[in-house]
Amino acid sequence: MMDFTRTEYQTRCDNLQKLMHGQNIDAFLLTSEPEIRYFSGFRSLFWQSPTRPWFLIIPASGEPVAIIPEIGRALMQSNWLTDIRTWSSPHPSDDGVSLLVDALKSYAKIALLKGAETHLRMPLADYERVTQSLNCEWVDGTAMIKKLRGVKSAAEIAILSKICAIASQSFADAPAIIQAGKPFNEVFRDFKISLLQNGAEDVPYLVGGVGTPSYRDIIGPPSAQNLQAGDVLMLDTGATLQGYFCDFDRNYAIGTPDDRALFAYEKLWQATEAGLAAARPGVKACDLFHAMNAKIGSESNDVGRFGHGLGIQLTEWPSFYPSDETVLAENMVLTLEPCIALDDGCIMVTEENIVIRDGTAQLLSHR
Amino acid sequence: MMDFTRTEYQTRCDNLQKLMHGQNIDAFLLTSEPEIRYFSGFRSLFWQSPTRPWFLIIPASGEPVAIIPEIGRALMQSNWLTDIRTWSSPHPSDDGVSLLVDALKSYAKIALLKGAETHLRMPLADYERVTQSLNCEWVDGTAMIKKLRGVKSAAEIAILSKICAIASQSFADAPAIIQAGKPFNEVFRDFKISLLQNGAEDVPYLVGGVGTPSYRDIIGPPSAQNLQAGDVLMLDTGATLQGYFCDFDRNYAIGTPDDRALFAYEKLWQATEAGLAAARPGVKACDLFHAMNAKIGSESNDVGRFGHGLGIQLTEWPSFYPSDETVLAENMVLTLEPCIALDDGCIMVTEENIVIRDGTAQLLSHR
Repeated sequence: MMDFTRTEYQTRCDNLQKLMHGQNIDAFLLTSEPEIRYFSGFRSLFWQSPTRPWFLIIPASGEPVAIIPEIGRALMQSNWLTDIRTWSSPHPSDDGVSLLVDALKSYAKIALLKGAETHLRMPLADYERVTQSLNCEWVDGTAMIKKLRGVKSAAEIAILSKICAIASQSFADAPAIIQAGKPFNEVFRDFKISLLQNGAEDVPYLVGGVGTPSYRDIIGPPSAQNLQAGDVLMLDTGATLQGYFCDFDRNYAIGTPDDRALFAYEKLWQATEAGLAAARPGVKACDLFHAMNAKIGSESNDVGRFGHGLGIQLTEWPSFYPSDETVLAENMVLTLEPCIALDDGCIMVTEENIVIRDGTAQLLSHR
Repeated sequence: MMDFTRTEYQTRCDNLQKLMHGQNIDAFLLTSEPEIRYFSGFRSLFWQSPTRPWFLIIPASGEPVAIIPEIGRALMQSNWLTDIRTWSSPHPSDDGVSLLVDALKSYAKIALLKGAETHLRMPLADYERVTQSLNCEWVDGTAMIKKLRGVKSAAEIAILSKICAIASQSFADAPAIIQAGKPFNEVFRDFKISLLQNGAEDVPYLVGGVGTPSYRDIIGPPSAQNLQAGDVLMLDTGATLQGYFCDFDRNYAIGTPDDRALFAYEKLWQATEAGLAAARPGVKACDLFHAMNAKIGSESNDVGRFGHGLGIQLTEWPSFYPSDETVLAENMVLTLEPCIALDDGCIMVTEENIVIRDGTAQLLSHR
């Protein structure tokens, strides 16, 4: 039942411990789904329930300690960890707090995630209680996790490649489910079914837009409006396989698109070509943004960036925008997502998924 | 495009403001998806991306203020709020922090969610930065939100009733997709497709278990093992409609179930009957637990509770366990979820969804 080999999980922990040693950190406390899964292998949709907190402690040396609700013991045991401490949760007066304090009390310097794109996934009052019970210095470990998770293993890339192929097939099949007169939300439903039929395990994310000459909103739920000639319809999906996401979109014209839509699409195509040409190890995230933006020549855009990392989460570090100095490295998996504003508040977005390789980037989505 | 009328959203805010006045609270800061949706109507799968923080401030009087990334402006504007302040996000050096400080700086006592089943959905470092920039007292507003969200409106119950009917239909149809020799994970896929075909908008949650005489784990992803005669298979789904969840399960026997499974199932049936009989306004959550547990007579169970609230989230307050003193009120929507341990570490779980009414509770799931 394990998604990866024991060696792979062990390597992930070893790599984190090496980074921790460099900063004299005694332990790393993790509370969020992506990180707990990354290091322990614990994968469950049960995180949908906000009720119970989950904790993983990675000490400076030795094996990780899972401190989790009893309901998760069987699943955690089916992975590689052996030090699993549980309590009967929910138990609001002490929902793992005393177990956590007990496990952390001998450490002076403890890392946790405090930075951009992270959240503390435990009640704030419990975090304050833990802090009061410990005599430790908390330090922000975001940069360490970002560094580790950013570069994917061969096994991770194999899964990402597979889910991108599945979504590519559904996008290729989509013209059969997109017709004038059909309600937009029915296209959404049919597309989700297509993704599942083609092999996706889940479709946690499907957004899109429709309009003439293009769409305005790209994050809302679909309306029941009927598609009509001249519309451009966009579907953007984060489907998953073994808990790994694809994240790319495709634009479809209903009948003949408006010239403004064709012009925008051509610009986005050129921007993506420029991004593909520039995406190599050693290049900075901001440089990739500039390479794409040079083809678009737009002012600021509402989306805020031209792509991002991809993996366990729909969006991961880094971001392609002017202030992100992250240096791209081999085996990073990324999205190229240029956006362009048309008139009337309309926008158009395209997206591709790539792996940084030694040389030219490899496309995972079928362009 | 609004899920509810302006009056309904206005009433939700008015009710919160009344509770705030009772405690002299100047403003309520909300950072999490369920609460921001509940008060503003903003509904999007875009929360899947951890990148951007979102904020909603409800002052002691007057209209709420949305402080959100520019990418969300169009969707927020399509709802009822008019004071919408945006910035180009992601922007890690100031991801809404200065806008937030500016909006909150005149308040002395500010509520936010710190209690059980809540999370701060913004980077911890940014929360600390906001705290340092303000001269305010933070107070925990969990009890207020729990009180408001716990009792559902007629419009909310109508949606919950519909998604429960959709899932009931898929459970009724499920014997056609459950056969000996079929891999367990293919049953999952077919069941998700069935839910979508029957009218569910999304299936964020589907877990289950299979085994003889019953299953052991109920939160892990499905294996590829083939179903065999004597197995009991359980599917537990949180499918959604307009962002509202059903949450119930059904157990299926492959061929003739083991006597131990039949015995367990009968006990769970009786426990649910007892729960249904006891579920009335004025009864405490813990009393409902005891009414069900009297029929099971078990020691502690791994699940930790015998049901919970239901609505915008798969699981909401309260919980049916011995220490929850929440008094049930008319129009609360709840799950009855007794669990029983068989020998060999096997367990069995059943679940129904109900509305508390003046008199006997109303079943939303088709028993």
